[in-house]
Parts: sequence; structure tokens; C-alpha cells
Amino acid sequence: MAKRNLEDLYARPGFLLRRAHQIAVGIFAEECASLGLTPPQHSTLMVIERHPGIDQAALARAIGFDRATVGQVLEGLERRGLLRRDGSAEDKRRKTLVLTPEGRAVLRNAAGAAWRTSERLLAPLPARERRRFVELLAKLTGALNESSRSPVSKPPGR
Amino acid sequence: MAKRNLEDLYARPGFLLRRAHQIAVGIFAEECASLGLTPPQHSTLMVIERHPGIDQAALARAIGFDRATVGQVLEGLERRGLLRRDGSAEDKRRKTLVLTPEGRAVLRNAAGAAWRTSERLLAPLPARERRRFVELLAKLTGALNESSRSPVSKPPGR
Repeated sequence: MAKRNLEDLYARPGFLLRRAHQIAVGIFAEECASLGLTPPQHSTLMVIERHPGIDQAALARAIGFDRATVGQVLEGLERRGLLRRDGSAEDKRRKTLVLTPEGRAVLRNAAGAAWRTSERLLAPLPARERRRFVELLAKLTGALNESSRSPVSKPPGR
Repeated sequence: MAKRNLEDLYARPGFLLRRAHQIAVGIFAEECASLGLTPPQHSTLMVIERHPGIDQAALARAIGFDRATVGQVLEGLERRGLLRRDGSAEDKRRKTLVLTPEGRAVLRNAAGAAWRTSERLLAPLPARERRRFVELLAKLTGALNESSRSPVSKPPGR
């Protein structure tokens, strides 16, 4: 008779990471309900605020999304008046990105939600292991960055 | 002047979990290239093998996906002849799911890829902390299961 339990599936790091990510998205959505931001939208606003004039390709690399996804995120944020795409009319990807005053305000208002999301995510872990858990996650993602289809690379500093 | 670095974004557990999940999907896809399976397809085959006759709603709960996503996964697998949906013609969701011999063969052939994905994911961590990392992830996802939009519940045993 086949093994009926699914403990091996439920103990797999890939399965657990998918679940944990789903949970993080759900908690962020709850915390951000009044602002209607998703995590990728929030990351996008953060990067553009810190790197005004960044282009779409560099933004995609900064947050580790493919360009198509970033294009959708930018369209939604632009439609809501939270950012502007300036410059090159013939090539959207060459446009440089800047936040509007509304975009900066939404980002300021979302800071608490982002902070509470992190707190709630780590709350189930023993207090003394929260930092260690984040360090291990950072180590894993740093070492395996190139195994992702959309590796992260920091925008150049000035 | 605004803070230019993104260390706070890159240290956020939600950001890191999204990255880690992306990486896990990328590694699984590499390992499974010859079989052309995604992680949700693989989880689906595992659950149906262990719980033949399970219906679509219980399958969705077993792996923590919403029903629309599970419906798409099932359609793809059925089209490839890896499973059958039997029963109720008028209500697809009531159909019971069973693997075909081809589905069982693909699942057997994918076992190594799934194992190697887990190994590669944990490889960057200090050997003595790999198990602890998985335990912490399991603790987090277990405690916050209900914060996900698609909580996991194990299929009933027999």
C-alpha cells in the first residue's frame, strides 16, 4: 500500500518557502488594505524613491522581477498617479522613473504596514532565533541569486 | 538626501521569502527540465498518488492553492495524460482524481529532481543549521497557516 501521509512533501524546503511566501503576501495585503499596495508595488516605490531617474531594466534587477512583471507593476502605479515615466517616447523601457508627491505620500503611509508584516511573519519563531532565521534566508538567497531566473543586482550608487 | 541603499528592503523577511521561493522554482525547473514539471504540478501528482479518488477541493486544500490555480494545474496534467478526472459530468470540481500509469511513471522519475532541489536549496547553509532552518520555516508556516488566503489542510487519512 502506498504511503498515505504527505509529511515528506510538507517538510520540503521548496514547499515551505512557497507557503511562507504566500503567507507573507497575505499578511502584507491585510496590513496594506487601506492603501491597496502589493509587495512588488511597495518594493518598486521604495527603489524609485531612493534612485529617482532609474530605468525599468535597472529597477527590475534591483527587485529581482522579470521585465514583463515590472512593466505591469509600473503601469498600475502610473495609472494611480503614484509615479511618472519621463523621457524616451519611442522606447518605454528607456524611460526614467520618478515618484509623484502622491507616490511619496503612499510610500510614507505604507512604512508601518511593511514593518508590521515583518513582525507578524517572525512572531511564531523563538525570539532569539528570529534574527538567525533572517540571516540564513539572506545567506541562501545571496548564494543562490544566480539560480533564479531574475537575479537581483543592486542599483549603482552615486 | 534620501538614503540610497536598499539594505532595509533586502533584509525584510517578506522580500527574502519571495526571492527564496523564486530561486526554489528556478532550481526545480532546472532539475526537472526533461520532465517539464513545475513544483505545483509535482505536488499535485504526489497528493493524488497517495490519495487516489481525492476531489479537486480537497486537493487544493492539501497543497494550499486556490481552486482556480488547481483547476489550471489539473487541466495541464490531464492534457498530458498524467491523470484522469472521473465521475460527475455536470460539476468538474466534484470529479475524483486518479493518476494514469504515465502519471505514476513521471512522478517516479521526478523523485530525484525533487530531492536534488532540496539539497541545492539548503547547500549554502552551514550543514548543522539546515535542519534547524527547515524546522523554523515549518514552524512559521504552521503557525501562520490561516493568514494565507489558501490555508493548507491535510487530506483525511483512511
